[in-house]
Amino acid sequence: MHSEYSEFDLITRFFTPDPPGEAAGVTLGVGDDCTLLAPTPGQRLAVSVDTSVVDVHFPGDAPAEAIGHRALAVSLSDLAAMGARARWCLMSLTLPEADEAWLTGFARGFHALCAATGTALVGGDITRGELAIGVTVMGEVPADAALTRGGARPGDLLAVTGALGGGAGGLALWQAGERDPSHPLLRRYLHPQPRLAAGEALRDLATSAIDLSDGLLADLDHLLETSGVGAALSLDDLPLVDGLVDALGEQQGRRAALCGGDDYELLVTLPPGKWDQARQRLTRQGLPLRMIGQITTGSGVSGLGDEGRRGWQHFQGRPDTGGMP
Amino acid sequence: MHSEYSEFDLITRFFTPDPPGEAAGVTLGVGDDCTLLAPTPGQRLAVSVDTSVVDVHFPGDAPAEAIGHRALAVSLSDLAAMGARARWCLMSLTLPEADEAWLTGFARGFHALCAATGTALVGGDITRGELAIGVTVMGEVPADAALTRGGARPGDLLAVTGALGGGAGGLALWQAGERDPSHPLLRRYLHPQPRLAAGEALRDLATSAIDLSDGLLADLDHLLETSGVGAALSLDDLPLVDGLVDALGEQQGRRAALCGGDDYELLVTLPPGKWDQARQRLTRQGLPLRMIGQITTGSGVSGLGDEGRRGWQHFQGRPDTGGMP
Repeated sequence: MHSEYSEFDLITRFFTPDPPGEAAGVTLGVGDDCTLLAPTPGQRLAVSVDTSVVDVHFPGDAPAEAIGHRALAVSLSDLAAMGARARWCLMSLTLPEADEAWLTGFARGFHALCAATGTALVGGDITRGELAIGVTVMGEVPADAALTRGGARPGDLLAVTGALGGGAGGLALWQAGERDPSHPLLRRYLHPQPRLAAGEALRDLATSAIDLSDGLLADLDHLLETSGVGAALSLDDLPLVDGLVDALGEQQGRRAALCGGDDYELLVTLPPGKWDQARQRLTRQGLPLRMIGQITTGSGVSGLGDEGRRGWQHFQGRPDTGGMP
Repeated sequence: MHSEYSEFDLITRFFTPDPPGEAAGVTLGVGDDCTLLAPTPGQRLAVSVDTSVVDVHFPGDAPAEAIGHRALAVSLSDLAAMGARARWCLMSLTLPEADEAWLTGFARGFHALCAATGTALVGGDITRGELAIGVTVMGEVPADAALTRGGARPGDLLAVTGALGGGAGGLALWQAGERDPSHPLLRRYLHPQPRLAAGEALRDLATSAIDLSDGLLADLDHLLETSGVGAALSLDDLPLVDGLVDALGEQQGRRAALCGGDDYELLVTLPPGKWDQARQRLTRQGLPLRMIGQITTGSGVSGLGDEGRRGWQHFQGRPDTGGMP
């Protein structure tokens, strides 16, 4: 095992956790066995961890800055789906070698999203091995106010934030050799935006929520199962991300929106009487909210038609992501 | 990418997080985007993460049960060093293939240590890749009561729990082909015991603490630097684990105790007036506390002699472990 670098040097140079600050709820920061945090009284702590592995969850030749951004974004998306406010994160970086340019880019992407979302990096570790990034996120949500997957009721409207298909569409473009970072599909794939503000805004209106990491159909299925209900999906209403049909064609584009993963939009259910208010709140954030169906009694998804079913089967082969819970 | 198993099956079979329970402070458990926890009012949250990578932090042919135990133990040891009570953990498991016998053993080792330490497994994820286990631990400690690395004062006694050299000695034996799990050195290496009860018992007596993961000299150095003091070490007083000298010889055994890592004992500093009380409390736990030196003004370690320095250089080549913070 050669050792061109010391772990402590790397930590100091690229990942010095944010200094202790009562404002950030950090009472003891870098340089001890643990970090000490001050949770807000009356709040629940929402926690989740996601690990991103090279060539399973992202291409190894993706820009380092995007790898740093995505690794944090996919974890923060779980907080968004609960309506929680992001507070803290810990980052475990496993990497085969210390490449200064790569680490500079990775750290820039990670820190920029920390700053944009008010998330303090409060700890982590760096080890040698195949490239993988594990990010534990901690957020806060008032007791009994969290959005879960289990509250959908027959008659609720089914809605999705933003636009779909950017994850699978962008990955397909990247694999086909497209490298223009301003291409809307690539931008969506490489820089997904965790919908934290939307989750907080919908917390007292929506009856249930989940983030779209595994693909609309798969994640809808999780929500329906947990809630014990079914859904009628209106395929023609799916909001497709700009450039999707141009890049993949009509049929593949619609399949990417229905079954592709990595969109990190929120799928929510809303009582009809809350719809206008929900859409107004998100409009003020500049984020569309699109109605794509309705919750029914029973179980499973209707309205798919043959096209939807074929698309579903087509995408069954992609590697699992996600985890408990 | 072949897929003999679904991630969700694995999770359900081997790693179903503990069911929600107010007693465990878990208000929403498995099956949602996040787990919801109820921190105890008035307590600080102590958090840390450690990643164990195959053939860097443990031999790939170690018993699966020991790999599960060790991955959790090394993280819990950081809580012990703060005097924190273990509450919750999240586990990220990356593994190349799903071997049922291996997973059964791994889960048994992990869950047994959860049960023994009162730690609830509240989340995690499973991904495919080179074998690695990341464990985030969360514990609680009363505000302003945590043990840190920064409180050692000249005149304090320097003391260590348990016995030293089991980590490096056990690894050397394993690499030499010893496979008797009841061998005291192997037992120490494969099943390190995080000193949680000792950390809590010493919290109001000790002035500083650190856990021994990188080796006594390296970790002592961290403590001295953070506290801004020096230490006089009494090499003859180091408590060697049973069987160490028999297995490695006198010189190598003493080097393992001084410089080897993975012992996961606590190194603490105590005002002389607190010594008797500290030792009595640990004696009631069946755990020895040995005085091994004294804190001085200045910086660095004296009392090493030529033997100690040679040992230190000898061990400089081992891979880094540890992290921020």
